[in-house]
Amino acid sequence: MSREPIGPPNALVSPRFATSATFARLPSTMEVEDPDIVVLGVPFDSGVSYRPGARFGPTSIRQGSKLLRPFNPALHTYPFSSVQVADDGDVGVNPFNIEEALLQVESQATCHVEKGRKLLTLGGDHTVALALLRTMSKKYGPVALVHFDAHLDTWDTYFGAPYTHGTPFRRAFEENLLIRNSCYHVGTRGPLYAESDLLEDKGFGFEVITSDEVANSGWRLCVDRIASGVGDSPLYVSIDIDVLDPAFAPGTGTPEAGGLSSRELLQMVRALGEVNIVGADIVEVAPAYDHAEITSIAAAHLGYELISLMSLNFKRQT
Amino acid sequence: MSREPIGPPNALVSPRFATSATFARLPSTMEVEDPDIVVLGVPFDSGVSYRPGARFGPTSIRQGSKLLRPFNPALHTYPFSSVQVADDGDVGVNPFNIEEALLQVESQATCHVEKGRKLLTLGGDHTVALALLRTMSKKYGPVALVHFDAHLDTWDTYFGAPYTHGTPFRRAFEENLLIRNSCYHVGTRGPLYAESDLLEDKGFGFEVITSDEVANSGWRLCVDRIASGVGDSPLYVSIDIDVLDPAFAPGTGTPEAGGLSSRELLQMVRALGEVNIVGADIVEVAPAYDHAEITSIAAAHLGYELISLMSLNFKRQT
Amino acid sequence: MSREPIGPPNALVSPRFATSATFARLPSTMEVEDPDIVVLGVPFDSGVSYRPGARFGPTSIRQGSKLLRPFNPALHTYPFSSVQVADDGDVGVNPFNIEEALLQVESQATCHVEKGRKLLTLGGDHTVALALLRTMSKKYGPVALVHFDAHLDTWDTYFGAPYTHGTPFRRAFEENLLIRNSCYHVGTRGPLYAESDLLEDKGFGFEVITSDEVANSGWRLCVDRIASGVGDSPLYVSIDIDVLDPAFAPGTGTPEAGGLSSRELLQMVRALGEVNIVGADIVEVAPAYDHAEITSIAAAHLGYELISLMSLNFKRQT
Amino acid sequence: MSREPIGPPNALVSPRFATSATFARLPSTMEVEDPDIVVLGVPFDSGVSYRPGARFGPTSIRQGSKLLRPFNPALHTYPFSSVQVADDGDVGVNPFNIEEALLQVESQATCHVEKGRKLLTLGGDHTVALALLRTMSKKYGPVALVHFDAHLDTWDTYFGAPYTHGTPFRRAFEENLLIRNSCYHVGTRGPLYAESDLLEDKGFGFEVITSDEVANSGWRLCVDRIASGVGDSPLYVSIDIDVLDPAFAPGTGTPEAGGLSSRELLQMVRALGEVNIVGADIVEVAPAYDHAEITSIAAAHLGYELISLMSLNFKRQT
Amino acid sequence: MSREPIGPPNALVSPRFATSATFARLPSTMEVEDPDIVVLGVPFDSGVSYRPGARFGPTSIRQGSKLLRPFNPALHTYPFSSVQVADDGDVGVNPFNIEEALLQVESQATCHVEKGRKLLTLGGDHTVALALLRTMSKKYGPVALVHFDAHLDTWDTYFGAPYTHGTPFRRAFEENLLIRNSCYHVGTRGPLYAESDLLEDKGFGFEVITSDEVANSGWRLCVDRIASGVGDSPLYVSIDIDVLDPAFAPGTGTPEAGGLSSRELLQMVRALGEVNIVGADIVEVAPAYDHAEITSIAAAHLGYELISLMSLNFKRQT
Amino acid sequence: MSREPIGPPNALVSPRFATSATFARLPSTMEVEDPDIVVLGVPFDSGVSYRPGARFGPTSIRQGSKLLRPFNPALHTYPFSSVQVADDGDVGVNPFNIEEALLQVESQATCHVEKGRKLLTLGGDHTVALALLRTMSKKYGPVALVHFDAHLDTWDTYFGAPYTHGTPFRRAFEENLLIRNSCYHVGTRGPLYAESDLLEDKGFGFEVITSDEVANSGWRLCVDRIASGVGDSPLYVSIDIDVLDPAFAPGTGTPEAGGLSSRELLQMVRALGEVNIVGADIVEVAPAYDHAEITSIAAAHLGYELISLMSLNFKRQT
Repeated sequence: MSREPIGPPNALVSPRFATSATFARLPSTMEVEDPDIVVLGVPFDSGVSYRPGARFGPTSIRQGSKLLRPFNPALHTYPFSSVQVADDGDVGVNPFNIEEALLQVESQATCHVEKGRKLLTLGGDHTVALALLRTMSKKYGPVALVHFDAHLDTWDTYFGAPYTHGTPFRRAFEENLLIRNSCYHVGTRGPLYAESDLLEDKGFGFEVITSDEVANSGWRLCVDRIASGVGDSPLYVSIDIDVLDPAFAPGTGTPEAGGLSSRELLQMVRALGEVNIVGADIVEVAPAYDHAEITSIAAAHLGYELISLMSLNFKRQT
Repeated sequence: MSREPIGPPNALVSPRFATSATFARLPSTMEVEDPDIVVLGVPFDSGVSYRPGARFGPTSIRQGSKLLRPFNPALHTYPFSSVQVADDGDVGVNPFNIEEALLQVESQATCHVEKGRKLLTLGGDHTVALALLRTMSKKYGPVALVHFDAHLDTWDTYFGAPYTHGTPFRRAFEENLLIRNSCYHVGTRGPLYAESDLLEDKGFGFEVITSDEVANSGWRLCVDRIASGVGDSPLYVSIDIDVLDPAFAPGTGTPEAGGLSSRELLQMVRALGEVNIVGADIVEVAPAYDHAEITSIAAAHLGYELISLMSLNFKRQT
Repeated sequence: MSREPIGPPNALVSPRFATSATFARLPSTMEVEDPDIVVLGVPFDSGVSYRPGARFGPTSIRQGSKLLRPFNPALHTYPFSSVQVADDGDVGVNPFNIEEALLQVESQATCHVEKGRKLLTLGGDHTVALALLRTMSKKYGPVALVHFDAHLDTWDTYFGAPYTHGTPFRRAFEENLLIRNSCYHVGTRGPLYAESDLLEDKGFGFEVITSDEVANSGWRLCVDRIASGVGDSPLYVSIDIDVLDPAFAPGTGTPEAGGLSSRELLQMVRALGEVNIVGADIVEVAPAYDHAEITSIAAAHLGYELISLMSLNFKRQT
Repeated sequence: MSREPIGPPNALVSPRFATSATFARLPSTMEVEDPDIVVLGVPFDSGVSYRPGARFGPTSIRQGSKLLRPFNPALHTYPFSSVQVADDGDVGVNPFNIEEALLQVESQATCHVEKGRKLLTLGGDHTVALALLRTMSKKYGPVALVHFDAHLDTWDTYFGAPYTHGTPFRRAFEENLLIRNSCYHVGTRGPLYAESDLLEDKGFGFEVITSDEVANSGWRLCVDRIASGVGDSPLYVSIDIDVLDPAFAPGTGTPEAGGLSSRELLQMVRALGEVNIVGADIVEVAPAYDHAEITSIAAAHLGYELISLMSLNFKRQT
Repeated sequence: MSREPIGPPNALVSPRFATSATFARLPSTMEVEDPDIVVLGVPFDSGVSYRPGARFGPTSIRQGSKLLRPFNPALHTYPFSSVQVADDGDVGVNPFNIEEALLQVESQATCHVEKGRKLLTLGGDHTVALALLRTMSKKYGPVALVHFDAHLDTWDTYFGAPYTHGTPFRRAFEENLLIRNSCYHVGTRGPLYAESDLLEDKGFGFEVITSDEVANSGWRLCVDRIASGVGDSPLYVSIDIDVLDPAFAPGTGTPEAGGLSSRELLQMVRALGEVNIVGADIVEVAPAYDHAEITSIAAAHLGYELISLMSLNFKRQT
Repeated sequence: MSREPIGPPNALVSPRFATSATFARLPSTMEVEDPDIVVLGVPFDSGVSYRPGARFGPTSIRQGSKLLRPFNPALHTYPFSSVQVADDGDVGVNPFNIEEALLQVESQATCHVEKGRKLLTLGGDHTVALALLRTMSKKYGPVALVHFDAHLDTWDTYFGAPYTHGTPFRRAFEENLLIRNSCYHVGTRGPLYAESDLLEDKGFGFEVITSDEVANSGWRLCVDRIASGVGDSPLYVSIDIDVLDPAFAPGTGTPEAGGLSSRELLQMVRALGEVNIVGADIVEVAPAYDHAEITSIAAAHLGYELISLMSLNFKRQT
């Protein structure tokens, strides 16, 4: 890159509590020419089955991201100055029509992905992951998936609706968007509707690493298993914030006790290391149930690590 | 009635903080034979344009109603022992399909209304009022309407959707469910999309009594005007809890500063007096934004007054 | 008084957000010789019938009182420098034995009252008013009563218990602690168990001024009626904070919609004017349900007005 | 069993956010003939020494249990369809008389236990455990005890009261309700009144496994020790939710920093495995201090695991 | 104006819950050429004497303003399309140096005011009003003042500091920024440090209209008095949100019980009518103490009315 | 000591929910003659860079300390009866002048430290640590430092200010208050402004033990490293509560995801064991962002452990 990337404003001139509508106070896509990594919000929660409110998730994650600083010591990188990161604002999604909303997300995401940009999407409920996997596979073919979540999200339908926050990965499987046997659910726990939920999921080629297993085997072993399964495939990382225990993420729609800690999850994401992340999302942040930004700060830090990994990947490719 | 109505359990045997899933700890419809007044919940919020969460409204209003006692001194009546009041639980509404949800509500409501029962519906968002007006007009023909709300709710469409919480009364007008010139919006305030919102609304035959007017003319004059306009017509009362100022009803989805106080609204409802209420709803309670049940207690008290009025009407008719 | 009363510390030396355990940052009774007015806490809530938590009321009202300043412009007086006001801390009440707790309160209150000190008690639940009325009548004989409350508090028993927060004034009547026909309930509203609640209450000699009546007649007329009924009798003022609407006092145990505003109540208390207040309480502040100290600040301001009135009374008597 | 157990309603017909007053939306005891496992609420908090509010615990745990689903993958069982589980509602306990309340709980519990039903009690404060141990020992003789708690709960008296939430297990020892040397306190931590608290407790035959020891030795070793000590004895499991760190259970009355995580506790409960649980309780959930149902969801999940273990035990016995 | 003003985006394309960092989702000053009215944030709270947090006020008021719509029916105007309104973001104020911060605010404000633009400032604490009055008087000479506040804000110093949120109007008087006898404090209440606070204030030429007076005389009479005193003078309107009762504005730093209602205040602001407002501020919104945006929504509505008045003034002048 | 130390009042006479303004309900310094350990509050937050509010920290930590009891089983000591511990209240710090505030803190701290008393300071923001290190080094010469914090706090300036909560340890280094290479940052995590932050910090002689390292190496190894580095040097322990994860300490000003758990931190503090702690602080508790006292209870427990260690040190020295 010939031009120096534009980063957040100097915190000594514009204090970090000054108003801002972009992730990490980064420039908007209107202020930069050709970003490498784009942050995109999807204020959508019409696919939820319990507590709604994730439509306010993008705003709250951005608010929680104001404290992010330029240097990532854990990954030893400056994500915002090694490549150009920019915030594209929120997609104008139809709250009353799930299928139209999926098309609106796909359309906006495709604008960026087809130019080789990597995408970090801030949800919104998990329904939107389907639109993003469609986008990714148009560009890259089927992708590997690392899916952090308390739930499998491979149900079939809910009240007859095929596209909800409980179904994106089943639909993705059916639409051949995923690389069979390179897909992982991490952090699952809690009761299911039936044992068949697990069996069907396995039949689709997913591997499950439960929250208990992360605790008992240690997160590093789990990540090693994932990384070796993913290999060099283009990888999509989808983080449902409810993978964290409700203590670490009260602000979400379908909480389950017994989840990961923020520290475990941040370490796992970072340890993914040199995988080839082409897109990622952080979903299901519902700020009406958050307190003191606990949830949105965790989400913002996860976004920072994902951007850092993506930026390192760009550097390796250059 | 030959049989003594069943009321709430004795608070000296079952303390009022004991668990209960019915309004005012009344019997459920499964426990009584032929109720006169039915409370029905509609846990639905897929029609909202801003903060969702009213799907948890019925549960929260019932929780806020535990302190209601048998004697209404303001109206000098025992609503739960003069007629049989019972709680029918919640309609199983489809959260992903507004039109199907409207049919589900209408179907369940019709079961009661066609038997001459009066209905108090606990929302849910305001979309559901359309289903209830359809139900009412099937039984009674077009009805008069007293609509307490910060908003007019006579928009046309939102994101292309004809059935949302901003449109029920325009649809009701179009479907001839209302008696022209016997319809009142009370408590409206705040900015609108355009002056045409007002002009169209007037064209549909609605009269507007703003929140400021209630304050400045006094609530009694306003009610007198309404009561004389309604006369003996079958009347539907629809209370969007956001008619209250956010101080009195923080737990709602589209709050507007400058609203009524709880005391004003309770007095206005009671003062409706001998009108012929055939059905009523209390909608838009979103408990994720409530605090210490301020909103759900106000809603529960409003429900109590509405039931009291309906019960007095039964007595007058007998 | 020969000695200058000790007031709160200078807010320019010790900022008002510095820690303090006394009302209005006044001296404790251990720091002054013979106070004229004593503030006493009763951290007790074993008499409540719904939400507990008033045991933390005294601490929260004191915390809410930190912003009180020395000059009362509405009553044109310096309450803390015209007489000596001091905080006696909290009575060590037994939480598991209501009758013992009543004796403990009476014992501590009597220490002050028998010396001619006026007493402002911070509850705690309303049960404690009985102990205070017993104390007052030992000194002054039966007293007049102005009782601000959403409820009558003249029930007989609850779960067989004669001493609870719903019964103090019936017990007080039975024990001849009150001057018949000089007792007022102000701000009552909401449903009752039975019409007999009202009839019995009237039979005990109480007059009821409802919350609606305050609104509709205006607070001034209501206070004029009270003041003329009370005359020069020794007067006890008991303020259940739930007399305020839940918007103005969410932090309480048995909230009822439709109450007074803080401004109305403050004006009514001040307008009592030259009555002879010998004791007063502010009860039922339950901070677990409060938000941003809305309730405890209202309670603290009410305490300030009551102390101001008491101090003016001392001055008139000197 | 010849008859198919009745489980929760289909979540695709009645959405899980619909109103419900039973644990996990299970049938009430009035809807089934002879349940195997009964859930019983005790809305009682008159025995607490610090923050009250656990009287609302049963309602809040049931509200937090709405997301529970039929299949338990961690224990590989369908607890609600292998045996009949039903909710018996709340015991009508006297809030003003601890000893009467204990008798009321014992009476209602005995109805079920004498028929061989297993009982999961939702508190309420820890006082109620004494009533349940009395019930158990009438049926089974002295029982083994696994007691998860930050505190020992073997104090003698508090303000002269022998029956409070700090004393149930001392009373149980004195009344010979426990099998000596088969009783465990797990998760204790924080300061005590005196070293004698520990020595006396040991003298009663309890073994202490601190929260620190769970962290440092690992939960599995701790459970192995417990399971081998308990053997085949009839076992009562009592979970004071304050065994969790305040981050995982803010909604409780006597919080102590440094507790277990939800994941640790859920794993420990599950790992109890084939012990013979005859009864269990989850107590001290005080929702006024909860946020976003963090505490009540953790409690609900613990209840689900306890029911699962009980149901497996039934199956083994059949 | 030849060019059509740019207003907020169409809410049917970009839902109002989409992320936005501008007041009422208006364009930023970078997107328009020469705005007529500018909204400016000052994230500053280093001048507060009690609860800090107003540094987050501008962000929270903007968040609370998302529901504002284009047509103001109460004033019958379209404020955003009759003139160009734009949001200038937040001034980068030094949180550690009050005097430098005042200069930074004055400098940024002057850029706009010297071009004849009207300015609505979102605080921040009340200290900033001094910078704005300096700005105004440089352009217009001394100005009239309508100051809505629970407090006088004409103290001298606090902890030796001359520039704090309690002193701006004394400093303004001393610096000859105000038109003597055209300055009003409205809504004052609560205790003062000394009677001299009132006397000095009067000596500076201020007139006081207390909160009680607004209630008792009616808001319209009060506004008439103000409007006639202000006449055609250039007027600065300063609204400390604590003029509202804590029920209507919990999210503020020095709350006082007994304040105005939102409806009263909105009506008073609107009724100012044809006065010549040259600048205005809304200060002391501290969102850490707010709930469900009660306070920030009230502030946003007040901002909307002020902008409407300013826009009407432009139209009258053209 | 000849005289028996005065401890907290008997919890069976004065319930722990009674009002109190001292840490652990200990006597105030005015009630004891020559305390050995003094608790000192510093209600100061003018040095914060993000969320203010720590000025209310001392009051909230004391409120959270009411449940502390006399015997520390983990360290097997009675800290309040082996030596005299007393609470000195809050320093009257100037909120508008950081340098004056530092002098005020140093002055008050020196009164105690020069008499050989050990000091536990409750912040307030981290700026105050500089005043305390100055105090310590006047008495003891340079001291070793164990600094628990998410951040390094060795920045240079912020908005030109040399003394803020981000700079105390750089200033301390420059002023030669620290023993080079006996200083540890523990629990750091999250993004930095630049890699130079780490390099400069290292150049000042600090060693960093990150939050991740505590998790991955185990806390015991980390403490061993620290204890051996500190040796017998006089040690100052500074705990920024944000070293805990936001789940365990939401009530703080600059939260970072991925922190320590309360249990880890309590164990680390206790394990410091026989080091020679001469002073300590717990800072950055901002109760406006706390919930249910999660943060202040953790802080109170940390204070209890620090006092216990100091008391054991006194005993070893005697």
